Amino acid sequence: MSKDKVRIAMVGISGRGSGLLGLLLEMEDVEVLGVCDRYPDRLEKAAKQVQDASGVVPLAVSDYRRLLEDKNLDALITPSSWTSHAQICLDGMEAGKYVATEVGGATSIEQCWSLVRTSERTGKPCMLLENCCYGQEEMTVLNMVKKGLFGELIHAEGGYRHDLREEVCQGRENRHYRLENYMHRNGDVYPTHDLGPIAKYLNVNRGNRMLSLTSTASKSRGLNVWAKTNKGADHDLADYPFALGDVVTTVIKCAHGETITLFHDTSLPRPYSRGNLLQGTKGIWMEDKHGIYLEGLSEKAHTWEDISKYYEQYEHPLWKRFHQEGVKGGHGGMDWLVLRAFVESVQKNQQTPVDVYDTAAWMAITCLSEDSVSMGSMPVAIPDFTEGRWIAREPVVKGTYCLEEVCEEYF
Amino acid sequence: MSKDKVRIAMVGISGRGSGLLGLLLEMEDVEVLGVCDRYPDRLEKAAKQVQDASGVVPLAVSDYRRLLEDKNLDALITPSSWTSHAQICLDGMEAGKYVATEVGGATSIEQCWSLVRTSERTGKPCMLLENCCYGQEEMTVLNMVKKGLFGELIHAEGGYRHDLREEVCQGRENRHYRLENYMHRNGDVYPTHDLGPIAKYLNVNRGNRMLSLTSTASKSRGLNVWAKTNKGADHDLADYPFALGDVVTTVIKCAHGETITLFHDTSLPRPYSRGNLLQGTKGIWMEDKHGIYLEGLSEKAHTWEDISKYYEQYEHPLWKRFHQEGVKGGHGGMDWLVLRAFVESVQKNQQTPVDVYDTAAWMAITCLSEDSVSMGSMPVAIPDFTEGRWIAREPVVKGTYCLEEVCEEYF
Repeated sequence: MSKDKVRIAMVGISGRGSGLLGLLLEMEDVEVLGVCDRYPDRLEKAAKQVQDASGVVPLAVSDYRRLLEDKNLDALITPSSWTSHAQICLDGMEAGKYVATEVGGATSIEQCWSLVRTSERTGKPCMLLENCCYGQEEMTVLNMVKKGLFGELIHAEGGYRHDLREEVCQGRENRHYRLENYMHRNGDVYPTHDLGPIAKYLNVNRGNRMLSLTSTASKSRGLNVWAKTNKGADHDLADYPFALGDVVTTVIKCAHGETITLFHDTSLPRPYSRGNLLQGTKGIWMEDKHGIYLEGLSEKAHTWEDISKYYEQYEHPLWKRFHQEGVKGGHGGMDWLVLRAFVESVQKNQQTPVDVYDTAAWMAITCLSEDSVSMGSMPVAIPDFTEGRWIAREPVVKGTYCLEEVCEEYF
Repeated sequence: MSKDKVRIAMVGISGRGSGLLGLLLEMEDVEVLGVCDRYPDRLEKAAKQVQDASGVVPLAVSDYRRLLEDKNLDALITPSSWTSHAQICLDGMEAGKYVATEVGGATSIEQCWSLVRTSERTGKPCMLLENCCYGQEEMTVLNMVKKGLFGELIHAEGGYRHDLREEVCQGRENRHYRLENYMHRNGDVYPTHDLGPIAKYLNVNRGNRMLSLTSTASKSRGLNVWAKTNKGADHDLADYPFALGDVVTTVIKCAHGETITLFHDTSLPRPYSRGNLLQGTKGIWMEDKHGIYLEGLSEKAHTWEDISKYYEQYEHPLWKRFHQEGVKGGHGGMDWLVLRAFVESVQKNQQTPVDVYDTAAWMAITCLSEDSVSMGSMPVAIPDFTEGRWIAREPVVKGTYCLEEVCEEYF
C-alpha cells in the first residue's frame, strides 16, 4: 500500500548533505522531519534550510538516535563519514526505518554482515545511494546490455579518477573525513561510483557474484607535492607520510569468469573520469572515448563511433522520461534519480533497487582492497552475502528504477 | 671501431619476417647473407626477395644452425615463434653473433636466465626488437618524461588491445603460432608493446626494477563466437576450450613504488589501442584521448589538451630527424627505427639500447603472468636479472637510439 508522504530525517549535513537535503525539499511527496549534525553551525544552517523551504521546523539534534524515536519517521538518509555511516544505518533499521547511505566503503567485513543480518531481521532495506547507477550514459549502456547489444559480457573497467588534492588537503578547514582516511588507510577507499553500475551490468548478486580480488597501491606523492606547493614547505602535510597510494588498482574476478579492473586515482593532477569500459563478445564501450563499437552495427570495422549516435534508439526509458519532465538535481540529474529510487521504494513499501546485499558487497571492496594491499597484493575472497541465494535471485524491484531489467512502461 | 657493412641472417620468414627483411634490404649498410625457414615455400620466397633486391644469392637453409657457421656473419635476427626464438638467440650468441628477436614472451624464467648468462659469457648483446619503444608518440612522451614535465612518475597503464580473432582462428591456414599458444596458455602472452616503453619511462633495470605482479584472466569466449560465426558451428574452434582468457589484467609493482597495469585483450571486437596512460605528480598522458594534461602548462585546469600541441616543442630529436630525412618502414616508421637501433649497434660494436637484461625482464612477464593466473592471481616475484646492478647501472647506449637519455646531437 503506497503512502502519500514520505517522512525523512537526514544525518550529517556537510556540503553533500546540504545538497541532498535541497533535493528532498523540492519533492512534493517528501517531508523532512529532522536533521542531525555534530557541528552546531551546520545543524543550525540545515534546520533553517528545511524551515525556509517547507515552513516546518524540523527536529534538529546532535545525536541521531533522538531522531529515531519519532514514530512518524519512515526513513533515514545519511551522508555521514565513511567510518560512521554503517552504525547509523544499523541503528536506523533497528528502529524500523528504511535507511539509505551516501557512498563510501566499509571498514570491516563484519560491518557488512551486520548490515545484512539487521536488514534481514528487521525487514528494513538498506540502500547505498550510488548515484552513478542512474547516470545518463551508464543507464543507456545498461539498457543496451540488457538488450544484448554487447553480447556476453567479458570484462569491465572503471575508476574514481578525480583530482581531489585540494579537497583532501583542505580537510581540516572543511571538516572533511577524506583527509584522515587518506592519512591512515591504503586501498580503494571509494570504489562504488565505478563498481556499482558494473555490478548491475554483470548481474552481481542475481545470477553472478564477485569471487575474489587483488589490490596494488602505488607510492603516495601527489598530496605532499600539492601541500608543499600550495601551503608551503613548512606545512605538516607537505611531508606527512600519507598511507594511501596515489593510484590503487583492484582486479576482481566474478563467478561467471568476468573480470573487473578498478582504479582509485584522486591524488594526482588529471581531468575527471569514471574510466568506464565494458567489453562483450559483440562490442565495447569506452567512456573516455565517448565511444562505442558494436560488431555488425557500427559502420566501419575496428573504428569507434560516438555513443551519442545510439541515444535516440537506446537511451534508457527512465532518462527519456526525465528529459520530457525536465532534468533536475545534482551531477547532471543522477542525484535526483537515485533519491527518487529510494523515496518511491519507501512510499510503495517495497525493496530498494540497490538492496542490502548490493550495499554490503560493494562496500566490502574497500576493506578487502586494504587487506590485499597490506599483504603484497595477495588475492582475497569476497564474501557471498546472499549465502548462495545469488544463484536464483530475481531482480528485487520490478519497475521504473530497476537496475536489472529495463522497464518500458512509459512508452 | 665501426664497420661499413653489417652482415645479417634472418631466421623465420613469415609475414612479419618478410616485412623486416624488406626493410633490411633497403639499408645500404646491410648485407643479408642468409635466410632460414622450416617451410620450403617461405624459404624460396625469402631467398628470391633477397636476390631480387641485392643481386646476392643468400644461403637458404631449413636449419638455422648452418647459418651460424658463416664466419662473416655479424648478426642474427629472428621473428620466429614465441616458443622457438629464445633457443635461436642462445645459439646465435654462442656462435659469437649479435642477436635480435621479434617480440613475444618467455615460456620459463630459466630461459630468461639462459639468455642473460649466455650474453654475459659471450659478450654478445641480445635485443628484443620492441618497435613501440620507437613509436612517435611514445618517444615524444619519453622526451617529456626525461625533461621532467610529468614530475615524479607514479603509475602507468598499457595494453595490447587489438582484435586478432581472425588472425588467431586462421592460424592453421596461415601457419601462425598464435593459435596454438591461445589454445594452451593463459596469461599475458604478448606484454612488451605496452611494457617496453613504460619500462624505459620508469628506468627499469637502471635505478629501478619490477618487483612483483598479479595476473587475472577473464573467461574465454571471443574466439569461439568468431569461429562459430565465420567458420560455422561444426568447425572445431567453434567450441574448442581455449585456455587464454579474452582479457588478462596484470598489475606490476616497482621498487620505487610505481605501479604498471597491463591488459592483453585480443579476442574481442574492438578498435586497436595500446592503451597507454602515464601519470606523474605534474601531469598525465592518455593515448586513447590523444590527450595530455600538465599542471601549470595546460591552459585550462582539469581539462585535456591534444598532445599534438606539444609536438613542435617536445617531439623526440630522433623523430624530428626522421621527419627531415623522410619517414619510412612499417607501423608508421617505428619498425625502421628499431632495426636501425640494432644495426647501428652492431656496426659500432656497442651494446644495444634494449639489452639482454631488458629483454629477459620484459619477456619474463609472460610466464610469470601464467604462473599468477594459474594460482588464482597470487602475487609472484619478478627476478632481478641484473643481480643488484640495477641500482647503479647507467644508460647502456649513449647517443641516437638511447631510450634512457635524450640525445640532442642533431639540433
